[in-house]
Amino acid sequence: MKKKSFPLSKVYGLLEPGPVVMVTTASRGRNNVMTMSWHTMLEFEPPLIGCVISNRDYTFNILKATKECVINLPTVELAAKVVRVGNTSGRDIDKFKTFALTAMPASSVKAPLIDECYANLECKVVDTVMVNKYNFFVLEVVKAWIDTAVKHPQTIHHLGKGVFMVAGKTIKLPSKMK
Amino acid sequence: MKKKSFPLSKVYGLLEPGPVVMVTTASRGRNNVMTMSWHTMLEFEPPLIGCVISNRDYTFNILKATKECVINLPTVELAAKVVRVGNTSGRDIDKFKTFALTAMPASSVKAPLIDECYANLECKVVDTVMVNKYNFFVLEVVKAWIDTAVKHPQTIHHLGKGVFMVAGKTIKLPSKMK
Repeated sequence: MKKKSFPLSKVYGLLEPGPVVMVTTASRGRNNVMTMSWHTMLEFEPPLIGCVISNRDYTFNILKATKECVINLPTVELAAKVVRVGNTSGRDIDKFKTFALTAMPASSVKAPLIDECYANLECKVVDTVMVNKYNFFVLEVVKAWIDTAVKHPQTIHHLGKGVFMVAGKTIKLPSKMK
Repeated sequence: MKKKSFPLSKVYGLLEPGPVVMVTTASRGRNNVMTMSWHTMLEFEPPLIGCVISNRDYTFNILKATKECVINLPTVELAAKVVRVGNTSGRDIDKFKTFALTAMPASSVKAPLIDECYANLECKVVDTVMVNKYNFFVLEVVKAWIDTAVKHPQTIHHLGKGVFMVAGKTIKLPSKMK
């Protein structure tokens, strides 16, 4: 396996810049995946993520029932598949098969890792108090993986209606921020 | 004034890509500003934003008391000031004066618009149920402004420890996503 274990203390740096991600779930031995863009870090360590999964999405009930998912981070090479995943529902098709995504077993959850994504975060649902009102789930990352060969991941960031900003250059400033 | 009113229905497209923002507040006639990166959209319209403002931040108590703020979106030209704003506290200094930021009056809240930012979102706190546990505020955008001269805003996205990704090129894909 090309992926290596990634320190939980550094997970925030993967999500704080706001990339589009793919959320995988598993239910009764069947994998599903959806595209998601409404997420934020809530805590550094253990890393807590808050995210909106609409109750219209097939993933919603699976996540409520299984309380497990994986957040997979794609780069621009996968953009066309990311959009197709977002345009379809697991109610109708097997998206892993249809879009030729490779499901790899996770270590701590039943939901699969998407092998083509450069980073994968195994998550458990730890708080559902805001699910009824905002479809907002609180997840704890219990295990993280990264492809260390990807030095400058060209993540994609949704500007609306299928227009995406691709991650550009990086700059370093004398920040005291974590 | 160079800024124009921006439709509330389009606000999500400004924040969904995950830029670093500056949050302004006002208390007893004194303006303050902080840097913030942990935010997500919660609803399209009226636009709802969820964001983490730490209880260690000077802004925290002001936001709890006044229930008003402005989310200001900077571009890379302002990056050095954004970092300085993030490295200092309004307890110690007047950041608008120290960093030569221009406070403009908002229309619906007492917190000021930062003139140098290309977009400004006037917000009211509408839900504090997750403040005690996660420092997580739910804001409703009640008025939005944009500098229409900025066609491709080079927003900045925090990767951690003062390293920022600068928004790169945009791509359009055949998405059904809003």
